[in-house]
Amino acid sequence: MADRLGIRVPEIDLEGRRRAHERAEALLMPHRALGKLLDFGEKVAGIAGFPTPDLSRKVIVVMAGDHGVTEEGVSAYPSEVTGQMVHGFTAGVAGINVLSRHAGIGVKVVDMGCRADLSALVAAGAVIDAKVGPGTANMRRAPAMSREQSVLCIERGAAIARTLAAEGTRMIGTGDMGIGNTTPSAAIASVTTGRPASALAGRGTGIDDAALARKARVIEESIAARAPDPRDPIDILSKVGGFEIGGIAGLILGAAESRVPVVIDGVISTAGAVLAWMIEPRLVDFMFAAHRSVEPAHMAMLSLLGLSPILDLEMRLGEGTGCALAMPVIEAGVKVIREIATFAEAGVSGP
Amino acid sequence: MADRLGIRVPEIDLEGRRRAHERAEALLMPHRALGKLLDFGEKVAGIAGFPTPDLSRKVIVVMAGDHGVTEEGVSAYPSEVTGQMVHGFTAGVAGINVLSRHAGIGVKVVDMGCRADLSALVAAGAVIDAKVGPGTANMRRAPAMSREQSVLCIERGAAIARTLAAEGTRMIGTGDMGIGNTTPSAAIASVTTGRPASALAGRGTGIDDAALARKARVIEESIAARAPDPRDPIDILSKVGGFEIGGIAGLILGAAESRVPVVIDGVISTAGAVLAWMIEPRLVDFMFAAHRSVEPAHMAMLSLLGLSPILDLEMRLGEGTGCALAMPVIEAGVKVIREIATFAEAGVSGP
Repeated sequence: MADRLGIRVPEIDLEGRRRAHERAEALLMPHRALGKLLDFGEKVAGIAGFPTPDLSRKVIVVMAGDHGVTEEGVSAYPSEVTGQMVHGFTAGVAGINVLSRHAGIGVKVVDMGCRADLSALVAAGAVIDAKVGPGTANMRRAPAMSREQSVLCIERGAAIARTLAAEGTRMIGTGDMGIGNTTPSAAIASVTTGRPASALAGRGTGIDDAALARKARVIEESIAARAPDPRDPIDILSKVGGFEIGGIAGLILGAAESRVPVVIDGVISTAGAVLAWMIEPRLVDFMFAAHRSVEPAHMAMLSLLGLSPILDLEMRLGEGTGCALAMPVIEAGVKVIREIATFAEAGVSGP
Repeated sequence: MADRLGIRVPEIDLEGRRRAHERAEALLMPHRALGKLLDFGEKVAGIAGFPTPDLSRKVIVVMAGDHGVTEEGVSAYPSEVTGQMVHGFTAGVAGINVLSRHAGIGVKVVDMGCRADLSALVAAGAVIDAKVGPGTANMRRAPAMSREQSVLCIERGAAIARTLAAEGTRMIGTGDMGIGNTTPSAAIASVTTGRPASALAGRGTGIDDAALARKARVIEESIAARAPDPRDPIDILSKVGGFEIGGIAGLILGAAESRVPVVIDGVISTAGAVLAWMIEPRLVDFMFAAHRSVEPAHMAMLSLLGLSPILDLEMRLGEGTGCALAMPVIEAGVKVIREIATFAEAGVSGP
């Protein structure tokens, strides 16, 4: 299916990976004593096609979009907050700004489909314009978007990854902003894992028990009414998805095409990752799961992908904040393979 | 008991902590959506006595020492590796060097009791001389050290923390190097938790099943022969401890005295932390557990302290490598409280 979208994901470079592994085995430490760090370094080597790539240029892409389903009362916040938060991102005062600065990671903000008119921020170069529409339709009453819009989201997301890679970015993190977007994410989780909405809907921005029950019901009713084909990611995206979720799916595909390791944030990003993986199953070899979100749909989808989260800090903010903490850990895995001496180089006695 | 050692651990600053908490509650995100990061930031505020301290100056102190018990065949590596690794640290080619550089953390290497003559490195300013003796005695046949040496380890460790704090260090991480030192660490775990050595001994640098069984037996026999008083940390340290373990205990006490948050690495550092905590139980309020080591004694002691590990990357290298990855995460917790705008400051609609 990736071919039909014009996306060609390469094979993992087994030789680059083998060379990284060979060096990792000889490093000045008890065998594999840095545990998962070495696994991360070796995985990156296979993606990049080079045993010890330089990952110093890293970017988190925050995809923003609005959701018609908010009119069903599934979020604690009004839709206008999506556009307000985009202003917050460009002002540098939100969580993702602080955590990315701390880690030396760049941030790109993309309007995939906000209701707000963000053209002034686009004109100022602060926001990338990839707007597919002014928010999705309410999926309980109509498909969230058309099939053509679905494809457009993915193509635009992939194009952004390609541009970043061409500019020298060597690791990409996914981020999201969109009031209401844990609802389509849980819907995607339900369609793809076959588990009921009641087991997957979470509190998102902090809804109470009544709103949580309503959210699960809205997801169930939307899936029943829209009947997305569980084997067709484009159909799932168009019927119960979101513009930023499609953008994230495309971003992941485009990163893999460019041999750039891609780090998946929380539940919304993982919904995008599952759709991307359905388009191209080899994609898991290019992905890292940043952290374990408290949203129940998150682990259900990570388990479907066969990915283990790197961090578990009980976070649930989105924006790419999990990536900002996990990307330096992955980079550390590459650096230990590159920079720690071997026993032979250091002249230290072996076991 | 801390008083008798000339160490006065201050009270946590509840007002600093309260102000950090108040700001954390108002930040531009769903309530507490950054999970443990906010907890870390608030804990640091209480330690430092200031809601949003600057933690940019961070140091990991690698305490090195040798162990007489290695003659019982409890390690996969010969004792000479301890001194060789100290040379590796000063050359910048070991795991702790690479990970500290990556995170912008300084490294100090301390000779607490290596067999090797490290005077040339001390003269060159590359190693801090705090040598209490040229390796401990074999605890299976004699006390590891005298009671006076125990106290000296702690005093010297505390003095190093005080000096670092006076020089402007605002977060300290603990690290260790000492072939054989998971054996005294598991012995300390057994004495303090009351659990049998067979449940606590781990593979350390990578010993086989026969050596693991021997290690557990050596620990049991040492505890039986030495009979350390389980309520007296100085007695435990002198009978079944190690010079670098005592140095770590002192370092933690000295950091707390100076209102500097202290990050505990793996099983050896946690053995030091348990002894320090027995000297001053309020010390847990000043400590963070960097990561979950694969050594079984580690979780037993963390659970005794009531600390949860920040990371779980299946690491077991020691040297302070867990701290190098966890310290930036703790610092991120302080920065999010300081730098994220509140809803009011950003002019964003609330729930």
